[in-house]
Amino acid sequence: MTANSRHAPLSQFPVEDDQLLVGGRPLPDLAEQVGGTPFYAYDRDAMARRVHTLREALPKAVSLHYAVKANPMPAVVDYLRPRVDGFDVASLQEMRVALDAGAPPEQVSIAGPGKRPEELQAAVAAGVTVNVESPGELERLARAGAETGKRPLAAVRVNPDFELKSSGMKMSGGPKQFGIDAEQVPGVLRRLGELDVHFRGFHIFSGSQNLSAESIREAQDATFALAYRLAEHAPGPVELLNIGGGFGIPYFPGEQPLDLAACTDNLAGRMAECRRRLGDAEVVLELGRYLVGEAGVYACRVLDRKISREQIFLVTDGGLHHHLAASGNFGQIIRKNYPVVTPDHVQGGARETVSVVGPLCTPLDLLADRVEMGRAEEGDLVAVLQSGAYGYSASPHRFLGHPPPLEVLV
Amino acid sequence: MTANSRHAPLSQFPVEDDQLLVGGRPLPDLAEQVGGTPFYAYDRDAMARRVHTLREALPKAVSLHYAVKANPMPAVVDYLRPRVDGFDVASLQEMRVALDAGAPPEQVSIAGPGKRPEELQAAVAAGVTVNVESPGELERLARAGAETGKRPLAAVRVNPDFELKSSGMKMSGGPKQFGIDAEQVPGVLRRLGELDVHFRGFHIFSGSQNLSAESIREAQDATFALAYRLAEHAPGPVELLNIGGGFGIPYFPGEQPLDLAACTDNLAGRMAECRRRLGDAEVVLELGRYLVGEAGVYACRVLDRKISREQIFLVTDGGLHHHLAASGNFGQIIRKNYPVVTPDHVQGGARETVSVVGPLCTPLDLLADRVEMGRAEEGDLVAVLQSGAYGYSASPHRFLGHPPPLEVLV
Repeated sequence: MTANSRHAPLSQFPVEDDQLLVGGRPLPDLAEQVGGTPFYAYDRDAMARRVHTLREALPKAVSLHYAVKANPMPAVVDYLRPRVDGFDVASLQEMRVALDAGAPPEQVSIAGPGKRPEELQAAVAAGVTVNVESPGELERLARAGAETGKRPLAAVRVNPDFELKSSGMKMSGGPKQFGIDAEQVPGVLRRLGELDVHFRGFHIFSGSQNLSAESIREAQDATFALAYRLAEHAPGPVELLNIGGGFGIPYFPGEQPLDLAACTDNLAGRMAECRRRLGDAEVVLELGRYLVGEAGVYACRVLDRKISREQIFLVTDGGLHHHLAASGNFGQIIRKNYPVVTPDHVQGGARETVSVVGPLCTPLDLLADRVEMGRAEEGDLVAVLQSGAYGYSASPHRFLGHPPPLEVLV
Repeated sequence: MTANSRHAPLSQFPVEDDQLLVGGRPLPDLAEQVGGTPFYAYDRDAMARRVHTLREALPKAVSLHYAVKANPMPAVVDYLRPRVDGFDVASLQEMRVALDAGAPPEQVSIAGPGKRPEELQAAVAAGVTVNVESPGELERLARAGAETGKRPLAAVRVNPDFELKSSGMKMSGGPKQFGIDAEQVPGVLRRLGELDVHFRGFHIFSGSQNLSAESIREAQDATFALAYRLAEHAPGPVELLNIGGGFGIPYFPGEQPLDLAACTDNLAGRMAECRRRLGDAEVVLELGRYLVGEAGVYACRVLDRKISREQIFLVTDGGLHHHLAASGNFGQIIRKNYPVVTPDHVQGGARETVSVVGPLCTPLDLLADRVEMGRAEEGDLVAVLQSGAYGYSASPHRFLGHPPPLEVLV
């Protein structure tokens, strides 16, 4: 196999006697504790190690926020609460989960291009920072403040005038539904100053799931430069600058892990000027997938092993309805395989090339297309790695009426 | 606009005073009755008309089954129960819905490449026909019979040795997880005859969402020919021949409705030989999407109207988490627009080119990309047509924690 056809070696889970250990235990043990398959398991230690690595690499002056949307399981958010400096939420429900975990409201911000009136009111009532995404929303936020009798805390979400290159998800540059076009921001800041709304700062998010340190550094530099320009129009001191994140994790063959040091060193080099230009502004790095994505596996059980015209199919009790992204139906143009292993025989044992499919009556229900893995029989488990983010919550559980997956933090 | 850039004209809902009527009522009225947005609404009359049209066109000897997976809302299944001759289900949950609706078990069959042991047992206990999809599953079905003390009813699902050409979803030809390769079927039939299992017949399904009558006719002919060949190896009379369906509906610009008469006339022409070759076998046409897909709309409300770099965005309270297929993330290689209208101004009024997006923090949350529609303001509704199948149940409701959509049959 060439490097391009291989997945990057994964080291977040120990392998003992060729068995994958998640939460320190072999997956069949875990399946017994969980009480069934399929399930998602998230490993506390893997998350803690990732946070530790980040903390070591990040300049002290940069705060680390968790983007709850990546994995909103309450136990995961609870576990991360004392380990991060705040939470970014994308809905009222995510806000509840963050506050339930004990996050102080001043360390929570809410974003989203379409906030319902009750979401704005709840956010104001809770005292979290609202990332304002349009001139119209600014007026509605001020109204929510008048209605709740509390002064809204507002950051301006900016649609930058630059792109984050090589990004899995482009969220800036050109016309976008996210945030306010950079060139419109001065006018919005002027209006904000006229309203009974407290100005918190800026949220400048340019993209996600990026594996190119060079692109991320470029975007970081452009983000700070844009923030300095916009700060000149601010109606008060910039207290908060959320620079987004964008740090990706390798999913597909040929992808290499991000060069983290290159990204964090670049941030460190920007802090002196930031202090000079923005005073005491808290600089926030917002990461979701990068904190939890590699800490999770999805495990399902082989129901049937069948051979159709010389191709081996492992038919499992899990599939697209539980893990849409692994099936290739979540924003991927060309379907590629997530790393999939036989957790009892990660490297050794008999190997064979198989397709792993789910129980649904649709050819879309494909977890792995002709991959080499340890031989699995009926009753054995199959594990999809890199499944800690955008798995459980981003999948159509009801599709075809099979039972939903379970979730466990170990 | 050229024909290729236009959606086929849609006539399933009346338009009065330029207002779309669903269940005979304008959508804003319906929204008040439903108690909120977003919602799916399915129109009883549109479904009844579709069934009527089919019954008129189909030869009397062909039974019409509903594939519950297309829309498993219990009220929809209840409504269709006296109108169709049976149900095909894809899970234990769908089987419960069909039986709850009062379908006699002998008119229900269950399919799916990965049936769990408890599904097989429940199907045997209920007395529904199990479409057997592998040699291994045949053995498990016999065991389920021994365990429940009831003789299992088995049809053999065949992976044909031909393809349904120009199909939205290819489900036959080449190696597949569905059914038993045609060339393996004689051996499986021999084994079936040795087991305490009642042979019901064959399920030969070659694909779905097809708009080419020529391809469907070709597949029908090949299906009958294959059934005759396989019947020679049957351990008993063929009681049931499910020929699948494959009838598609137009979703995207340039697509034209299926020439129904061409498909049904071809079936009519096959019946005499079928009677001669298979005796009293019940020939079943299994349709899901074709019965309900055009009868449903998805309605959401505009939360914000914003202009970013000269492009107009309608940000709504609905999106990808409710209607994954309309966002282009459900098996589509190239994203195309579903038909989307302003239900208050279907044809007339001020027109403009807009993008309709949802509230999620992801660029994937796109319901319509630069389409021409009647001008909509904040608070107005937007309707996505052709949404009666694979909408509600095939979407990741939990994604980002926004409220799920509502469903109503009108």
